[in-house]
Amino acid sequence: MKICVLGGDGYCGWATALYLSGKGHTVAVVDNFLRRQWDFELGAQSLTPIRPLAERLRVWGQLTGKSIEQFIGDVNDYEFLAGVIESFQPDAVVHFAEQRSAPYSMIDRKHAVFTQVNNVVGTLNLLFALQELRPDCHLVKLGTMGEYGTPNIDIEEGYIRIEHNGRSDVLPFPKQPGSFYHLSKVHDSHNMMFACKIWGLRATDLNQGVVYGTVTEEVVLDEALINRFDYDDVFGTVLNRFCAQAAAGHPLTVYGKGGQTRGFLDIRDTVRCVEIACLNPPNSGECRVFNQFTEQFSVLELAEMVQAAGRKLGMPVTIEHLTGPRVESEEHYYNAKHSKLVDLGLQPHYLSDSLLDSLMNIAIQYQDRIDSSLFLPQVQWRNGRNQRARQSSVTAAVSASEVAY
Amino acid sequence: MKICVLGGDGYCGWATALYLSGKGHTVAVVDNFLRRQWDFELGAQSLTPIRPLAERLRVWGQLTGKSIEQFIGDVNDYEFLAGVIESFQPDAVVHFAEQRSAPYSMIDRKHAVFTQVNNVVGTLNLLFALQELRPDCHLVKLGTMGEYGTPNIDIEEGYIRIEHNGRSDVLPFPKQPGSFYHLSKVHDSHNMMFACKIWGLRATDLNQGVVYGTVTEEVVLDEALINRFDYDDVFGTVLNRFCAQAAAGHPLTVYGKGGQTRGFLDIRDTVRCVEIACLNPPNSGECRVFNQFTEQFSVLELAEMVQAAGRKLGMPVTIEHLTGPRVESEEHYYNAKHSKLVDLGLQPHYLSDSLLDSLMNIAIQYQDRIDSSLFLPQVQWRNGRNQRARQSSVTAAVSASEVAY
Repeated sequence: MKICVLGGDGYCGWATALYLSGKGHTVAVVDNFLRRQWDFELGAQSLTPIRPLAERLRVWGQLTGKSIEQFIGDVNDYEFLAGVIESFQPDAVVHFAEQRSAPYSMIDRKHAVFTQVNNVVGTLNLLFALQELRPDCHLVKLGTMGEYGTPNIDIEEGYIRIEHNGRSDVLPFPKQPGSFYHLSKVHDSHNMMFACKIWGLRATDLNQGVVYGTVTEEVVLDEALINRFDYDDVFGTVLNRFCAQAAAGHPLTVYGKGGQTRGFLDIRDTVRCVEIACLNPPNSGECRVFNQFTEQFSVLELAEMVQAAGRKLGMPVTIEHLTGPRVESEEHYYNAKHSKLVDLGLQPHYLSDSLLDSLMNIAIQYQDRIDSSLFLPQVQWRNGRNQRARQSSVTAAVSASEVAY
Repeated sequence: MKICVLGGDGYCGWATALYLSGKGHTVAVVDNFLRRQWDFELGAQSLTPIRPLAERLRVWGQLTGKSIEQFIGDVNDYEFLAGVIESFQPDAVVHFAEQRSAPYSMIDRKHAVFTQVNNVVGTLNLLFALQELRPDCHLVKLGTMGEYGTPNIDIEEGYIRIEHNGRSDVLPFPKQPGSFYHLSKVHDSHNMMFACKIWGLRATDLNQGVVYGTVTEEVVLDEALINRFDYDDVFGTVLNRFCAQAAAGHPLTVYGKGGQTRGFLDIRDTVRCVEIACLNPPNSGECRVFNQFTEQFSVLELAEMVQAAGRKLGMPVTIEHLTGPRVESEEHYYNAKHSKLVDLGLQPHYLSDSLLDSLMNIAIQYQDRIDSSLFLPQVQWRNGRNQRARQSSVTAAVSASEVAY
């Protein structure tokens, strides 16, 4: 298949682009390098040293004989995006090209507005470009399990049958997102459902859990292909941060009691899930939702697993409970369905098997690059303006002004 | 109370500002005149000749001795909006300042993007301004009944108790909006719920039905105070259009079978509902939802009522069924709850009593200003680009570029 990966220089996007290319698909990567820019803004960097995209793609081609086309630009620029679709003629577009950090969206008003405008307009542009130029193309869009929040009922995959006052209907599952970023994904989901309905587009909304790990079969082929490993307070996901903390001899920082339960998955499953979605497109007019994760853990459970893994390696790992920066329940019911991708062939990698190889060992290998000042949360949900903005306002303004309708 | 009416030069906003001022509240109007600009863009105008805001306010002051402060600017400009909040120190902000036409949002990509960015960013700015400057102020936000779509179950007021697999929770009512405009209101609703939760703001989301009528006690005091009456295909609501068609001797244009059922209300109830909301603020942290309409009608029922009213006046009124420009069910279940405002004291005006005075007679009085070329739908939901854009692209670009974060 011809598959276009928007945001293909980022964490999930890069692993996905290589995996799909390795599987024999014809792949194009689209990116504007905003993710690299945000590192400069935040004074952070990937634990693993990542190379420029052009070099990554050159090495991939030399090693495998497979070439990946690159388009450098912003999906918020419709003329650019339409040009990509027209020139590449994809069978599927995988859309990772959004601002994906909850804390980033909560820094202050400018970051909230930037996140929602960037994400919503990018997805709107894509929907209009497909309608205009490639209406049969399958849109594979990254959503998040965070769209659902933590309701006191089982979470279904996108839709729920509701019985009410003697009548019944299947309706979109109610959404209770927990940050301006998560809200942007909810907005996208509603826009996509509508576009599928009125224009007969076909889309898969992958409500992804928290991704962990760095290693995939493709990125280990050469150090030039290495993927990002973010552990900072803004872009780092919890498990990566715990492993970096363990490697740096820093206590694992659990927010509150650590009873926050979420869905998690190995990045090797992310790439496979995307391929499964691409290979099994929905019908025209259908906006299908998959919950894309493999296991549920509470934050405290994760900390304890990292602690145990550290001890196996002879590292004394302690756990510290901090007041959480977010507004969220520290104890709650959580049971989210996630069978649709398994039904289509996903064979999960489980955390117990990946923790040492794909996480702890990477963290230890690059421990000299760890900046411990990035471990502690600096963005408080209850504040309208956070200190993170002091160093970031100039960059954010630049980002916002790049949005072209 | 000190009440700030955003969008106070528009249709609902103007009637509301005068009503609240007449009731003794201290009122400020905020507007950037985009609504007047859209008339130029679309080659349309209000059936009733409306005066400049400054003149309207001067006459109101001369007639009643009550002064209404005006702030001219865009709520998308945060510095401007924050300045208004800081200077006026409102107890309640009534937010009408959004692009409110479904067809306008469906003209093409630029209009869709403009509508969502304008509405979402304006509301985000307002939430941040209240958090920063006036956290106890009550936000009274205009939503729409169109957020719910037409589910096959009863529509509740904002939230629904769902029993599922032996567990139960009260969750936001699932949304199935039918245009990029209606989607923008859904996005706003989610953003507001979140802001109330994390910052303890207090908000009322008024999911308003289709408003009809022109006459309120205040606007009839002088012709200089007259309100808008829109009947064109883009901003005209269905009942106003029918009355204008009847007055012009044009067939009433019903889309499809006309079984589309919606909630409706008299503009005299709009203004009272807003006051009721202001006088009964929710608690800090609460995002309350009222369904703001008084009666349900199908489009065909409305056409038949207008036909009957026309015949009483000796006008031969015919009904024509057109292929509908929207993607919507022509026959469906519809039963939406709307008791909360009545419980708080709303005494509805019913359409049967208002049709002649507030609608037909106005349409007849100004029939010389009717442009019949504006009756027929020019914006098709199934198209990504509509002809309306030909004359409008320059203006839309200007509007979009005015968005300042």
